[in-house]
Amino acid sequence: MNIGSDDLAIGIDIGGTKVWGGLIGGDGSVRARARRDTPHRSTAPRVVEDVIVEVVQELLDGCPGPTPVAVGVGAAGFVTADRSTVAFAPHLSWRQEPLRAALTARLNVPVFIDNDANAACWAESRFGAARNRPHVVMVNLGTGIGGAILASGVIQRGEFGIAGEFGHLQMVPGGHRCECGNRGCWEQYASGNALVREARAMIAAGSPLAADLAMRAGADQSGLTGPMITQAAHDGDATAAELLAEIGTWLGVGLANLANAFDPGLFVIGGGVSAAGDFLLAPAREMFGRTLTGRGYRPQADIVQASLGNEAGLIGAADLARNSDLGD
Amino acid sequence: MNIGSDDLAIGIDIGGTKVWGGLIGGDGSVRARARRDTPHRSTAPRVVEDVIVEVVQELLDGCPGPTPVAVGVGAAGFVTADRSTVAFAPHLSWRQEPLRAALTARLNVPVFIDNDANAACWAESRFGAARNRPHVVMVNLGTGIGGAILASGVIQRGEFGIAGEFGHLQMVPGGHRCECGNRGCWEQYASGNALVREARAMIAAGSPLAADLAMRAGADQSGLTGPMITQAAHDGDATAAELLAEIGTWLGVGLANLANAFDPGLFVIGGGVSAAGDFLLAPAREMFGRTLTGRGYRPQADIVQASLGNEAGLIGAADLARNSDLGD
Repeated sequence: MNIGSDDLAIGIDIGGTKVWGGLIGGDGSVRARARRDTPHRSTAPRVVEDVIVEVVQELLDGCPGPTPVAVGVGAAGFVTADRSTVAFAPHLSWRQEPLRAALTARLNVPVFIDNDANAACWAESRFGAARNRPHVVMVNLGTGIGGAILASGVIQRGEFGIAGEFGHLQMVPGGHRCECGNRGCWEQYASGNALVREARAMIAAGSPLAADLAMRAGADQSGLTGPMITQAAHDGDATAAELLAEIGTWLGVGLANLANAFDPGLFVIGGGVSAAGDFLLAPAREMFGRTLTGRGYRPQADIVQASLGNEAGLIGAADLARNSDLGD
Repeated sequence: MNIGSDDLAIGIDIGGTKVWGGLIGGDGSVRARARRDTPHRSTAPRVVEDVIVEVVQELLDGCPGPTPVAVGVGAAGFVTADRSTVAFAPHLSWRQEPLRAALTARLNVPVFIDNDANAACWAESRFGAARNRPHVVMVNLGTGIGGAILASGVIQRGEFGIAGEFGHLQMVPGGHRCECGNRGCWEQYASGNALVREARAMIAAGSPLAADLAMRAGADQSGLTGPMITQAAHDGDATAAELLAEIGTWLGVGLANLANAFDPGLFVIGGGVSAAGDFLLAPAREMFGRTLTGRGYRPQADIVQASLGNEAGLIGAADLARNSDLGD
């Protein structure tokens, strides 16, 4: 299909709590939106399919112009390289789930399944912070860390579709236990969960430095969230800024590792934690510059904040489906 | 140019001590060889050029058939993505050295410069252990660790040409100091230098477990080399086998990291230490299987020994130059 065409496509982003859908124009604009709650992971795969079909139907019913040409679905998890099957999704019941075939049969339009970070990276490269950049690594800091690789303008999926799982690079031998079963994974040090874990620990320890954060948390430290910490930093709380800088420093070490491996020209940092902006990115850039092997003898990649926010996933899923010959 | 053609090409591999040259057939066969000592890193760039020109001239003089169509040069170091310039080579005096232009002017034939690990990976993918495999990561264990990435059959160079520098992935915060200036780089734990360092430390400590290795080392531990340790393992020395297993275990952790990042179908392990075969690879496979994130929910990459030995670099450099439209 013709890139840049104004064919409409539908993008679906399956998150931990919500299923978001959007009717996406050829320019990446979101023309209409729909959403539902994500079924609990204990429910049957068919129930999640039903929700996706409902969201697509709602968007189709409200669609003013020609029928969308494709549906793209983005989900956190392992998606096979042929973009047909969800091999594993931590927040859903899918295990080797042939989602493309099932949805194609029910929707009667081409369907493509993608990893959510691949979809977000594609959206940023087509319409956002990575426009016109051929070699890009995206790192999404949410509860964990998602990642994606764009090389010579093409999303890299690897042999089995699982490329870009940067969150589980081992950074600290014998470090914090990760939900993947290993210890010392990067996402235990540089994600939103890591930020909140450290802040809660500081409150629980009764540190006077955490007084502002404790007040925001309420009755006990478990009420504290990542956005509260970012807000506290913006409001001038030095401890919140320090906690974000700690995450940023670990981010910088990891980005230096990824630069040694992929040598991109640009890193795009997305996900909820990226809303902290320079509280996160300034320490990351500083550590990156001090850690990059061969510094002084090589050009350095730029490190920027993602620009499409939390709609990047559904915009990218739609656009990857519309341009199915370009996305892989 | 036509892949698989029988055009001859010349490959040059610039090592730390020797410059190797070969006249390479379209089938990857080495039809003639030439070599010189590598000039010391204190000599001017022009001296290394002179040596390369001498090696090429010797091969041309002895060439029975048609004139070779291209010259490929492989060197350890940072080579720009356009394959023209050596940005930095640790063992040579080259800094932003426009080697391609200089050699083209003197040799009057197309010249391409490549990172040595990229050249070796290309050779293995065309004629060796990775034949017909689209997604391959090569890891060369020598004094340090070199690496290369083949994705969809194409060598990945990144934006600036430096992709594949896996040896400097930080694995241990605050770990062993590396010659790159950082601490805890992978090559401080899984290279030939790491193997020899640990064995020498064991001898220096006077451990009775190191009696066999001490005898091989001679007067003091500094006489011990990597090949001696591999030979000791083959001869049945349990300590040598343990030391290789330790390297192999760190190799396995690093390969699991690379699988999370690139998701190749095949890892090819080359370089001098790979001669240890299963003393190295069996522990690496075991650790890889225990460390891979999502194990049980994803297919696992194969881990095999390289098959072209220490001529992979010059075979690959020649073939990348001959097929200059395919190598990047």
